[in-house]
Amino acid sequence: MNSNFPNYAERMDNLNASAIREILKLAAGGNIISFAGGLPSPESFPLEDIKKAIDIVMKEEGPQALQYCSTEGHPGLREKLLKRMAEHNGIKGQTMDNIILVNGSQQGLDLAGKIFLNKGDVVFVEEPTYLAAINAFKAYQATVIGVPTDEDGIIPEELEKMLKKYPNAKLLYVIPDFQNPTGKTMTYERRKGLIEVVNKYPIVVLEDNPYGELRYTGEMVPSIKTLDTMDKVVYMCTFSKVLAPGFRLGWMTGKKEIITKIAVAKQATDLQSGTFAQHVCNKYLELFDLDAHIKEVMEIYGHRRAVMLDALKKEMPEGVSWVVPEGGLFLWLQLPEGIDAGEALKECIKNGVAYVPGAPFYASEETAKVNTARFNFSFVDDDTLRKGVKACADTLKTFLK
Amino acid sequence: MNSNFPNYAERMDNLNASAIREILKLAAGGNIISFAGGLPSPESFPLEDIKKAIDIVMKEEGPQALQYCSTEGHPGLREKLLKRMAEHNGIKGQTMDNIILVNGSQQGLDLAGKIFLNKGDVVFVEEPTYLAAINAFKAYQATVIGVPTDEDGIIPEELEKMLKKYPNAKLLYVIPDFQNPTGKTMTYERRKGLIEVVNKYPIVVLEDNPYGELRYTGEMVPSIKTLDTMDKVVYMCTFSKVLAPGFRLGWMTGKKEIITKIAVAKQATDLQSGTFAQHVCNKYLELFDLDAHIKEVMEIYGHRRAVMLDALKKEMPEGVSWVVPEGGLFLWLQLPEGIDAGEALKECIKNGVAYVPGAPFYASEETAKVNTARFNFSFVDDDTLRKGVKACADTLKTFLK
Repeated sequence: MNSNFPNYAERMDNLNASAIREILKLAAGGNIISFAGGLPSPESFPLEDIKKAIDIVMKEEGPQALQYCSTEGHPGLREKLLKRMAEHNGIKGQTMDNIILVNGSQQGLDLAGKIFLNKGDVVFVEEPTYLAAINAFKAYQATVIGVPTDEDGIIPEELEKMLKKYPNAKLLYVIPDFQNPTGKTMTYERRKGLIEVVNKYPIVVLEDNPYGELRYTGEMVPSIKTLDTMDKVVYMCTFSKVLAPGFRLGWMTGKKEIITKIAVAKQATDLQSGTFAQHVCNKYLELFDLDAHIKEVMEIYGHRRAVMLDALKKEMPEGVSWVVPEGGLFLWLQLPEGIDAGEALKECIKNGVAYVPGAPFYASEETAKVNTARFNFSFVDDDTLRKGVKACADTLKTFLK
Repeated sequence: MNSNFPNYAERMDNLNASAIREILKLAAGGNIISFAGGLPSPESFPLEDIKKAIDIVMKEEGPQALQYCSTEGHPGLREKLLKRMAEHNGIKGQTMDNIILVNGSQQGLDLAGKIFLNKGDVVFVEEPTYLAAINAFKAYQATVIGVPTDEDGIIPEELEKMLKKYPNAKLLYVIPDFQNPTGKTMTYERRKGLIEVVNKYPIVVLEDNPYGELRYTGEMVPSIKTLDTMDKVVYMCTFSKVLAPGFRLGWMTGKKEIITKIAVAKQATDLQSGTFAQHVCNKYLELFDLDAHIKEVMEIYGHRRAVMLDALKKEMPEGVSWVVPEGGLFLWLQLPEGIDAGEALKECIKNGVAYVPGAPFYASEETAKVNTARFNFSFVDDDTLRKGVKACADTLKTFLK
């Protein structure tokens, strides 16, 4: 009678262990240079300032910081984030009813899936996109479909074609700034075009902006949320890339009704995000200048981006090309046709370097380009970057013989 | 075309804002004595020791504590928890593959729902049970059915009757020690009987033990997991009631295959639990004696339990009865037939005291006993306990006139 024990839910058929996580495990084991993760540099954490913030939290608000709190989260922190979004991102007119704290943007994706997606519902994503977003939506048995993109981001005409085909599509997930994995930034015209199209359909836009503040060249492009005339965009951001991912703290901003539903779903999911982390981030914002800190982070990452671009140019064999990102953490490589980046990775790891193959970032196996790869440049130092790129290039050359 | 915007998932029809949370919001607003929450006493937090643990974490492992970590969580902490479960709970033979850290037990419920439940799948719960567990399962559109209980807990014969009716039921959720909301403890015989029944069916048992270490009288009863001959029990525990809920840290222990699926689901849900909180809890366990701390907590709560029991005896009108719990945080009251605890609550709040009405703790409205209520005794001090019970009793008397 126990033959079908444990009997898992159907949705688990769609979910596989994240390639990123499995590779991180692998790379963490040995002496491997990892371009695989999306990890901030450990040097980028403002340890002293965080320590001061913690000391004051423990001294002045210890019992509250260790207690349960509301599902929506620390009111002072939410107020500061509203102010910051208004000043930095031009996202205005949002009130305390329009914001909820979550466990990093990843939980934002999960909760959006939870409140919107029935089995079979259509979710549009950029092609390629953040692979753990695909998994978050597939966990709700959604049909995840990639929308064609070019160097300027999603093509509104293509989006409209797809919305005509799937007029009841529930979500459009986009990372307009320094996209994961491609590093591309959607142009202003494309953002306006996107809003014009979505305004005609009952679809919600999830705008994920984890890297937006990490711009090393070029001019800031207004977020899609600032163009959102019909309150259809839910904007997500996080402390993970500008302060520290170990706090697991991000936030979602959008229409009050949607945020209320997110809160109801979050209650059933994990009650609330960590109170202590919320108090520390709140105190940090109160005491210190996050912008000054971000400037320091940008100097590290902007420099590493340049080092990796130089190394790629110097080392990579002919036929390998890459997107030059204006910000963020990633470079997107295109290998010569016929090279499978997954196969090449196995050899690269033998030679001491790891990256993430591009295929899992595509919504479907059929459209996946196997000759692509994502390289992270934020985590390791200059020499290691150079060494890793060389090892990788040398390995790829053996595939071209 | 936007008439059905936003178009929520079907599952949201089953989910309502938690009564506990809504009442907490209400009670937090004014000068109301709250017996409503399940909050630890702020005096119970070992502030100084936690501060020392944090100082060392920041000094010795700051960059790691602020970084991403594995989905399963901090290896050192998981090892310490395995050791603790073996020594304190008799849960032996578990390895690092059998344990994963989660955001409090609530996320354990959500992830169990995620990996096991298809729409319409049957989940058995004690009648009544923790209301946010009902919501966690309903979020996966499960059919949640209460199993009859008496003063000794779930009745195995009744469970078997229900399993014969629903042989493919996926989950049985139980809180055997000082149950939420009733405060009852399942006897050893009942636990053995439960395992004998579930071993005949492909059902997973979720054993939730947040309060087990908070026993004020009587003898410890071995956990159901210790009787688990077929590896069908997933045991859940948390730091929330013995250290601090603000870290949002709990853990799940069970069959390797199940824990692996939980990890896959957690990756898609929020990547990992907070690294910083994990490091602090790990360092706390390394440096301090959690048992000595729990002893201090028990002195506070054991005393408050006695104070509330005394006050109830002194103040409550005839016809009001209650369960005397051997541990935990809650007292379960039965009001005279005909009194709706939800209606009485409104009057009680006017008189400055709040509790949680019992009805939402039942799996179905039909079986719900509206003349029940859950009183928490851990959160407020002696005088406030007495004052609150008196205000409540005086209010109830007006219903009996």
